[in-house]
Amino acid sequence: MKDMRGLVYGGPGNRSWTEIPDPAIQDPRDAVIRVDAVTICGTDLHILGGDVPETAAGRVLGHEAVGTVIETGGGVAGLVAGDRVLASCISACGICRFCREGVYGQCLGGGGWILGHLVDGVQSEYARIPFADLSTYKLPEQVSDESAVLLADILPTSYEVGVLNGRVQPGDTVVIVGAGPIGLAAVLAARLYSPAHIVVIDKAESRLQAAKMFGADTTIVAGGEDPREVLLALTGGLGADVAMEAVGTPQTFELCASLVRPGGRIANIGVHGKPATLHLEDLWIRNVTITTGLVDTFSTPKLLDMLVADRLDLSHMITHRFPLEDFMPAYDVFADPVRTGALKVVLSR
Amino acid sequence: MKDMRGLVYGGPGNRSWTEIPDPAIQDPRDAVIRVDAVTICGTDLHILGGDVPETAAGRVLGHEAVGTVIETGGGVAGLVAGDRVLASCISACGICRFCREGVYGQCLGGGGWILGHLVDGVQSEYARIPFADLSTYKLPEQVSDESAVLLADILPTSYEVGVLNGRVQPGDTVVIVGAGPIGLAAVLAARLYSPAHIVVIDKAESRLQAAKMFGADTTIVAGGEDPREVLLALTGGLGADVAMEAVGTPQTFELCASLVRPGGRIANIGVHGKPATLHLEDLWIRNVTITTGLVDTFSTPKLLDMLVADRLDLSHMITHRFPLEDFMPAYDVFADPVRTGALKVVLSR
Amino acid sequence: MKDMRGLVYGGPGNRSWTEIPDPAIQDPRDAVIRVDAVTICGTDLHILGGDVPETAAGRVLGHEAVGTVIETGGGVAGLVAGDRVLASCISACGICRFCREGVYGQCLGGGGWILGHLVDGVQSEYARIPFADLSTYKLPEQVSDESAVLLADILPTSYEVGVLNGRVQPGDTVVIVGAGPIGLAAVLAARLYSPAHIVVIDKAESRLQAAKMFGADTTIVAGGEDPREVLLALTGGLGADVAMEAVGTPQTFELCASLVRPGGRIANIGVHGKPATLHLEDLWIRNVTITTGLVDTFSTPKLLDMLVADRLDLSHMITHRFPLEDFMPAYDVFADPVRTGALKVVLSR
Amino acid sequence: MKDMRGLVYGGPGNRSWTEIPDPAIQDPRDAVIRVDAVTICGTDLHILGGDVPETAAGRVLGHEAVGTVIETGGGVAGLVAGDRVLASCISACGICRFCREGVYGQCLGGGGWILGHLVDGVQSEYARIPFADLSTYKLPEQVSDESAVLLADILPTSYEVGVLNGRVQPGDTVVIVGAGPIGLAAVLAARLYSPAHIVVIDKAESRLQAAKMFGADTTIVAGGEDPREVLLALTGGLGADVAMEAVGTPQTFELCASLVRPGGRIANIGVHGKPATLHLEDLWIRNVTITTGLVDTFSTPKLLDMLVADRLDLSHMITHRFPLEDFMPAYDVFADPVRTGALKVVLSR
Repeated sequence: MKDMRGLVYGGPGNRSWTEIPDPAIQDPRDAVIRVDAVTICGTDLHILGGDVPETAAGRVLGHEAVGTVIETGGGVAGLVAGDRVLASCISACGICRFCREGVYGQCLGGGGWILGHLVDGVQSEYARIPFADLSTYKLPEQVSDESAVLLADILPTSYEVGVLNGRVQPGDTVVIVGAGPIGLAAVLAARLYSPAHIVVIDKAESRLQAAKMFGADTTIVAGGEDPREVLLALTGGLGADVAMEAVGTPQTFELCASLVRPGGRIANIGVHGKPATLHLEDLWIRNVTITTGLVDTFSTPKLLDMLVADRLDLSHMITHRFPLEDFMPAYDVFADPVRTGALKVVLSR
Repeated sequence: MKDMRGLVYGGPGNRSWTEIPDPAIQDPRDAVIRVDAVTICGTDLHILGGDVPETAAGRVLGHEAVGTVIETGGGVAGLVAGDRVLASCISACGICRFCREGVYGQCLGGGGWILGHLVDGVQSEYARIPFADLSTYKLPEQVSDESAVLLADILPTSYEVGVLNGRVQPGDTVVIVGAGPIGLAAVLAARLYSPAHIVVIDKAESRLQAAKMFGADTTIVAGGEDPREVLLALTGGLGADVAMEAVGTPQTFELCASLVRPGGRIANIGVHGKPATLHLEDLWIRNVTITTGLVDTFSTPKLLDMLVADRLDLSHMITHRFPLEDFMPAYDVFADPVRTGALKVVLSR
Repeated sequence: MKDMRGLVYGGPGNRSWTEIPDPAIQDPRDAVIRVDAVTICGTDLHILGGDVPETAAGRVLGHEAVGTVIETGGGVAGLVAGDRVLASCISACGICRFCREGVYGQCLGGGGWILGHLVDGVQSEYARIPFADLSTYKLPEQVSDESAVLLADILPTSYEVGVLNGRVQPGDTVVIVGAGPIGLAAVLAARLYSPAHIVVIDKAESRLQAAKMFGADTTIVAGGEDPREVLLALTGGLGADVAMEAVGTPQTFELCASLVRPGGRIANIGVHGKPATLHLEDLWIRNVTITTGLVDTFSTPKLLDMLVADRLDLSHMITHRFPLEDFMPAYDVFADPVRTGALKVVLSR
Repeated sequence: MKDMRGLVYGGPGNRSWTEIPDPAIQDPRDAVIRVDAVTICGTDLHILGGDVPETAAGRVLGHEAVGTVIETGGGVAGLVAGDRVLASCISACGICRFCREGVYGQCLGGGGWILGHLVDGVQSEYARIPFADLSTYKLPEQVSDESAVLLADILPTSYEVGVLNGRVQPGDTVVIVGAGPIGLAAVLAARLYSPAHIVVIDKAESRLQAAKMFGADTTIVAGGEDPREVLLALTGGLGADVAMEAVGTPQTFELCASLVRPGGRIANIGVHGKPATLHLEDLWIRNVTITTGLVDTFSTPKLLDMLVADRLDLSHMITHRFPLEDFMPAYDVFADPVRTGALKVVLSR
C-alpha cells in the first residue's frame, strides 16, 4: 500500500479525485480493504448538494463497495487478509440494543450509516471499515463484484424498507412511485413475493420502459393518466395493497396515500427534506399502515444466497462502467440520468 | 311490542326522545331486539354537531347496546327469541372479502358501522339488528349488562386499533395522548400486555387522576411538563415504544409522532376532521410505523372470555346510570364531562 | 334438470357411476349447481379403500368442482342462477368461532370438509352445495374450468398447509418429501416466495422429472443418495429452512424432521393413518416448529387473482381428460399413476 | 484475586467444592467477574447424573450468576472493571448467522450454552465469561442480585421457549404440565399476556399450591382428575389454546398434545432424553403447531426493564439462601425438592 486517491467532498458543489493518506487501523475492530468495485448513490449527490450538513468537507464519500481485506485489527474475529468482502452501507457495533435486534441502521454504538457520511467512505483505492466483522460479508466465488456491489445498499434497502415493511404478499397489487434506481430495485425485490400486479409511476417514459424490463406489468406516466383510476380498475375498485414511495417528495408520498385500499400499506423508501400532509380526515377510518425506515442490511446474507442460487437477476441495473481513476466523469454521468440513461454506475480496478 | 320511543337525530344540534314506529324484520338476516342497556358514544355527539353529513335527520342514534332477541328473520341461524346478546357497533355481511378476513369494519356488503349512522340505531326501546348472526354476541350469564355494553365499541376499539395495531409488548413504554373514555379504555387494554410504563397525557387533571386509577403509572398535564423529556427519561433517551392518539386533532397526532423511539409505533385511535403534518424529513430515517383503523370487533369473543374469567375490570368506566326514558338528560351529562366528570353513561330498563 | 348420474361409494372397494335422484335445496343457505368440471382426489381413493369410516355407503364422492348455479335457497345473498362458480372442498357456516377467524376447515357449524365425505359430493351431473355463499367462489371469465378446479383443494392445501404454515421466505432452502400431485403443487406454491432451492424427494424417477418441470432445482431418489448430505451441502452444513411432508407415512415425516436446520420448520401436508416417532431427545434443543393442518381455503380469492393476472401456471398439473360419463375409467387411470403417469384427471361435460 | 474455590464436576455422581486456579483472560473478548450471587439449575443435576457426556470431569458447573467485572480483554467494548452484571446462560459470538438473527442459543461461533457445560462455569468465586459484551447485561441499581440471577436462565427460558413460542395471547386458556421451577416461571411469564385461564398439572400437591401462588387459577393432580375433561369444560369443549411441556418425558409431551384445541400450540420447554409418540393420525387435521427450543436470551433486556419498573414479581421463586462456601449442602437441598420444598436456591457472598 502507498499513498492513494479518493473522491473527496470539498463542501457544497465541490468534489475531487485526489491524493489522500492511506487508511490505517484505528480501532481493534477495524479492517482495511483494497477497493475492487464501488458505486455511487443518490445520497452522495445529496451530500454534494449540501443537504447533509453533518458530512464535513474533506470527507471521502461512498458507502457501497466490494474489496479485498488487507489488514485487520486485533479484535476482528471472522476476517483475514485476502478475504473478498462486500462492504455494506451500514456498520454495526453489534452490542447496543438495536444491533442485538438486527436493527443495525439505528446502531447506538457508533455504527449505522457512517461510511462516507461521518467517517471516510469507500470511493477510494483503499478504505478503513469500522466494526469489520459485522459490516462486511464474505463473498462466495460465484458472485461477481458487480452483482455484489448492488447488495451494499440498493437491494437490501428496497427489500427491507420497501417490500418487507410493505408486507408484499403473493397476489398483491403493488404500486411503486418513482422509477429511479431504488424504485427499479423495488420492482425486482417485490417480484420475490409474486404479486399479481406491479404498477410503476414516473415522469420519464424511458424509466417506465426500464420498469417494464425489470418486471412491472403496468406503467403510468405521472401527469398523464389518473393513477387512482388505473389502480381501482386493477383491484375491483379497492386500491393497491401496497404503495411504495421511492422519490422523496411530499407530493409522491401523498399520491401513495391516495392509492392504497382499506387495510393497505404505504412503505416510504424515499429520503425526504420536507414534511408531507397526512390526510387523517380520510385515513383514520381506512386501516392503513405507513412505515418509514433506514435499511438495516439484515437481509444481505439471504440476498447473497439468492445470487449464488441464480434467483436474482441484477444484470440490467448497471448501465455504465468506469476504471477507478475516472471517478469524476462517472459522477457526471450518474448525476444526469435524463441525458445519460444512467441507473447504477460501477467503478473498478 | 307496541309503539316505542327512541333518540332521534333531528339535524345539527337537534335531538329528541320521541315516539317512533316499532322496528320490524326487513331482511331474512335481521333480528329485532328489546334494548336492555345502551350507552352514548363521542361519535353520537359528532353526529349531533353536524360533522357526519351522511347521517340523515330522522335517524335513531346509537351503536352500543345489550338486548334480548324478540324476533329473527328466516336467514338467521344462530339466534332465537329470548337470547341475551351484545349488539355491536359493527355489522358484518360475512361474505365480502373484508368480512372473510375478519375486517368487518370495512365490510363491502352493507355492513360496517351502520347502526345509528346509516340505519336506525339502538338508542330506543327496541331495535332492528341487520346481519344479526355476525353482528351480535350471545352473552354468558356471568357477564353483566353494564360490562357487556362496554364491549360494543370502546373496548374492542382501544384493544384492536390501539393495542394490537400498536403491537404493545411486555416491557414496552406506552404513551397515550388523551384520557377521555377511549384513552382510558386504551390504558386498560394496554395493561393486558404488561408494558413497563403507561404514560398518559391530557389537559384535565381530573382525567389524569382517572388514568392513574385505570393503571397509568405516569401522567403529564398537557401544556405543563415537556412530554418528550418525560418519555426520554423513562426510556434511556430513546422515546416510547408505542404512542396512541386518542383525541383526534393534528396537534395530538404530531405530539405522538414526536414521542416514539426509532422503530416505534404510532397507533391512531382518534377520529380526525383535519389533516396533520407528517414530518417525513425527520421520520423517514427512524423506522416508525403509523397505523389507522376503524374497529373490526374480531376481538369481542376474546374480550368476553376475559370478562367471564374475571380478567378485565371495567367497573370504573361507567360513571352515570339512567333509566331509558331519561335519554335527554343523559346526553346533557355525557356532553359536558368537564363539569359532570362523566366517562360512560348507561341507560337501562 | 332431470334424474342424473353420480359416482356412488358402495362400501370398501365398491364404486359405481349410477343413476341417483336430482339434488334439491334442503336449507335456505344451499345452492344447486350443474357440474361442469370435476376432479378426483387421493382422499377419494382413501374412502374407497375403507379408511374413512364416517363416509357411509351410498354417498356421492367428490369435493372439487367448477359448476353453474341452477338454483339458490332464500338465505343465499351473493349468488344467482347462471353464476359460474368454483365449489371448494371446504364449506363454511360463517358464524362459528373458527369461521369468524377464517379457519373454515375447522368449522363448528356443520361445515368444514363435508362434500363427498359427510354429505353427497360433486362427482355427479348436479350437486347441492351447503352454505353456498361461503363455500363457492365466482369465477372471472379469464379463468378456465381446468385451472379453477385445481383451486378447489390441491392449490390452497399446498399453499396454506405447506407454504404458509412452513413460512417459506425468499432465499430459503425448501425440501418437499413426496412428488405426487400435492407435492408438485407444493413446488408451484413454494415458488411464489422465491426460495433459493427447492429439493424434492420421491421413489419414482418419473415424478422427480415432473418435479423439475414444476420448478424443483434438485431431486433425490428415495433410497439412493443420502438426502441429509444433499441438504447439508446446499446449506453450508445447516439443513433445510423448511421441510414439507407430502406423503403421509411415519418414515417420511421422520425424514423431514431429520432434514431441517436449527430454527427450521416442518410443515405436514400428508394424511396420516399411524403415529410417528418424534425424536425430542434431538429436537428439544433445535428450535424447530412442526405444523399440521387441514386446508381452510382462505387463500382461494388470492390464488384466483393470480390466475387472472397470469402469475400461476397450472398447465402441467392435468394429465388426463374425460367426459363426465367416463368416471369409472377415469378412476382407474388416477388410481394407477405408476402405469399411467396421472397427476390430476379432469372430467367435464 | 487469589486462588479460589469452585463446584467441580468429577464425573457421574461426583461433585466437590474445591480449590481451583483463578480464571484469567484467554481471549480478547473475555471478561473475568467476581461471582456475587449464583444459582443451581436442573440441568446441573442432569450433568451430575451423567446424562450430558460432552461435559468433562473437572469442569466447574453453573450458568446463572450475578457478578462484578474484575478485568476485561482488549476486545471488550462495553464493560469496565467494577460493572455489576448478569452473566447469562447463553454466550454469543455476535457474528455468526444465528447471532445476527438474535438466535444466540444456536451460535455457530463458539457460543451458545457453553458455561458450565463446555467451558468452566460460574459456580465459583470468580469466573471467566467468554464473549463478555454479548453474554452479560449491566444491572441497574434498583435490581437486586436475587431477582437478576433468575434472569440468567429460568425467566427468559420460560418466556421465550414457552410463552413466545406458544404465542400466548390475552384471553387464552394455557395449560402448563409440570410445576417445577421452570413450570412456575412459565406461569409468571404467561401472566404477562393476560390469559383467561392458567391451568397447571403436576404430581405434587405442594407444587400445585405454589402454582396457585404464582398465578394459576386451576390446578390438576396428575393421575387424579382427567385433565382433558377439565380443559374441555373451561373452553367450551375445544381444548387449550396453548400447552407447555415443562417436565421432559414422552408422557407429559403426549399429554400436552392431547389437550390443545384445533389450531392450538404446543410449546416444549422440557429437556428430553427419549423420543415421544406423535399421534399424526389424529393431529394431521387439527392445525396444531409444536415448537421446541433452547433459550436465546434476546428477551433479557426487556425482562430487566420490567424488573426496574416493578412489573415482575419474582419474590416467591427463591426458597433457600446459602453463603457461597455452602455449595455442597445447597445442592443437597435443591436435589431433593419433595423433601425440602426447594424451588430456586441462591448462593451469595
